[in-house]
Amino acid sequence: MADQDQTDTWGSKSWAYLSSLRQQSPLIQCITNLVSMDLMANTLLAAGASPAMIHSILEIPDFTPHTQAVLINVGTLTPEWLPAMKAAAGVANRLAKPWVLDPAAVGASGFRLKACLELIELKPTVIRGNGSEIICLSMASIGSTKGADSLHESSDAVEAAKSLAKSSGAIVAISGSVDFVTDGQRVVGAHNGLPMMQKITASGCSVTALIAAFVAVDPAHAFEATASAFSVFGLAGEIGMGLANGPASLRMHLIDSLHGLDRETVLRRVKITSFS
Amino acid sequence: MADQDQTDTWGSKSWAYLSSLRQQSPLIQCITNLVSMDLMANTLLAAGASPAMIHSILEIPDFTPHTQAVLINVGTLTPEWLPAMKAAAGVANRLAKPWVLDPAAVGASGFRLKACLELIELKPTVIRGNGSEIICLSMASIGSTKGADSLHESSDAVEAAKSLAKSSGAIVAISGSVDFVTDGQRVVGAHNGLPMMQKITASGCSVTALIAAFVAVDPAHAFEATASAFSVFGLAGEIGMGLANGPASLRMHLIDSLHGLDRETVLRRVKITSFS
Amino acid sequence: MADQDQTDTWGSKSWAYLSSLRQQSPLIQCITNLVSMDLMANTLLAAGASPAMIHSILEIPDFTPHTQAVLINVGTLTPEWLPAMKAAAGVANRLAKPWVLDPAAVGASGFRLKACLELIELKPTVIRGNGSEIICLSMASIGSTKGADSLHESSDAVEAAKSLAKSSGAIVAISGSVDFVTDGQRVVGAHNGLPMMQKITASGCSVTALIAAFVAVDPAHAFEATASAFSVFGLAGEIGMGLANGPASLRMHLIDSLHGLDRETVLRRVKITSFS
Repeated sequence: MADQDQTDTWGSKSWAYLSSLRQQSPLIQCITNLVSMDLMANTLLAAGASPAMIHSILEIPDFTPHTQAVLINVGTLTPEWLPAMKAAAGVANRLAKPWVLDPAAVGASGFRLKACLELIELKPTVIRGNGSEIICLSMASIGSTKGADSLHESSDAVEAAKSLAKSSGAIVAISGSVDFVTDGQRVVGAHNGLPMMQKITASGCSVTALIAAFVAVDPAHAFEATASAFSVFGLAGEIGMGLANGPASLRMHLIDSLHGLDRETVLRRVKITSFS
Repeated sequence: MADQDQTDTWGSKSWAYLSSLRQQSPLIQCITNLVSMDLMANTLLAAGASPAMIHSILEIPDFTPHTQAVLINVGTLTPEWLPAMKAAAGVANRLAKPWVLDPAAVGASGFRLKACLELIELKPTVIRGNGSEIICLSMASIGSTKGADSLHESSDAVEAAKSLAKSSGAIVAISGSVDFVTDGQRVVGAHNGLPMMQKITASGCSVTALIAAFVAVDPAHAFEATASAFSVFGLAGEIGMGLANGPASLRMHLIDSLHGLDRETVLRRVKITSFS
Repeated sequence: MADQDQTDTWGSKSWAYLSSLRQQSPLIQCITNLVSMDLMANTLLAAGASPAMIHSILEIPDFTPHTQAVLINVGTLTPEWLPAMKAAAGVANRLAKPWVLDPAAVGASGFRLKACLELIELKPTVIRGNGSEIICLSMASIGSTKGADSLHESSDAVEAAKSLAKSSGAIVAISGSVDFVTDGQRVVGAHNGLPMMQKITASGCSVTALIAAFVAVDPAHAFEATASAFSVFGLAGEIGMGLANGPASLRMHLIDSLHGLDRETVLRRVKITSFS
């Protein structure tokens, strides 16, 4: 199914996004879970973006209009945080800014599922989850997702993702051994990355933030930007793994590698292929 | 006082727990302080467990029944978080799941001491603190504990721990230059670890989470599981120190080492001894 | 403008502060943003201080009197946190303890600016921000600061800092390629550090905490303590950079270096100069 010419195109595309990101340094507002804030902010900084972890509803009207994209992650959701998430998504919509939803552990409770469905009503540009989360959302019923981890292979979730993309109008992105991206019609797989990245807490949350940053520099092509962000993050992990002895050193080297990624490496090693 | 045959037994026991943990990947719900979330989740992932930082009271009824153990840490307690802690402990009790209490900086205020005493009413399986915290709890009066650090050597706190174990019915575990574990009668000391681990924020919190994961795979033997978790974590620190130049690199190498620990190393280097 | 004799004096001074900090291990209460807690606590531990991230208003009356300094950072401010910040600043004032304000991203919203102005009414000993934040505060109007990052060179903000120092009575400290410190009359520049430190999230927050720790050991000379903290942190970054490959490894080596800094290195490499 791989198409080598496509692959070359995707390498160029990915590099174009990353270099634009470094030049433009878009301001990305993150309303995210308490576990992920540190790694997410460092991921965005290493990629060239300007992160802002601002979550008070009182600040949305003043601050959100100045951002280039909004990231919302429900990983440690409480009722107090939900109104600010909705307000920020609302501002993003009104001002035609992209916003990205990470339905982290959406199957954990009825409360969380309901919150995610309400957020999806606010038209996210991209939804990024693991297989279980995307299936759960697509089924719109409480699944038995096991914590924040994925029980389903990402490929199993592709049909669910297409269905969710059609019903929501969002690009839907699934993390897994291969990462999939669909707009409901097209499906691409991003093959970079490695299994040990799942042993780093908040690595999934951080790639969603990176997606927001990539989409911020080209909101009209969120499908391409999302696939490129997946591969760039995975590629940074692959390079980092060359120096790592375990998950903690991988985490460090991944961020270093993301910061240092050069054109030649991106062109040569990004691997994204089309699926029919 | 050391008993070399016992030591050999403890090595086997510790390895049995660690390998079970890697196979079963128990789901550990952590309601913990804001400082510790990142290191705690990474510690659990590196050890093979599946962490879930979920603290909204609205999610307890749906989520907590699916967990294998609950960890509660009061390090950044506010009144808003306490009801969820009690609810999760209550579910754990009702469903006969183990739960572990970390009374972090319990001496910081009357509010915090009262909260910990209320939590102890809910029958934790294990209580893990430093010497000051265990003495403070045992005295049930506001001590002069200095922040989250320990002013007392762990050995000084052993009598207090035995008393607290008897009154509460919990296994009581004290971190220090030697870590002690008691059920009110038996006392063992875990000798692995090194002083620089105290220079890593949340290392104490993280070992409590690791105790929860070890207890999750053998709830009937919480005493043995607790001592084993102490030694495995300390041993990961010892191995990590071989590569470290200071507290931050120790933190990284500790997590890498925990992830990579093999049978031979655990059998050879775990050192737990009985005290009368 | 540099004055080599002064430089030598500053090296001695900086070493005196750092060695006092290691001996006295002052208890520093940090009411800070959710992103910075981990790195801030590790920075304080590596420097020899005893950090306590305690932010519940219920604990201020019991706990804050036992501290040697208080750090308040508004980076993820919500209305729920503000009363505890004010209460802690109030206790610090009443008991003549130093307290340090980090007006992180003060220009993000009217809410945040108002909160910072109210906190400044409570007489912080030191205010530490980047150029944009200090200018924004000094103008006391909503600036267009771009997230938490600085749009202004720190040197541009010196006049604003002098003005803010005079009106508030605080030492005002500006992070940048050169860090400036002023009491409204005197101005010194701390030249240690390197640009990549801005790619580490919470590095600015952490140097503010280090300032609080330095001031804690010599509250009568907050101007000197602040400049010394800037240079010691920057110097740790410089040494760390010798081993680093990017922002994440720099972060690790910086903390290791801060922990290991010796007298000779501090005397030789601290560079602080007077500006008229």
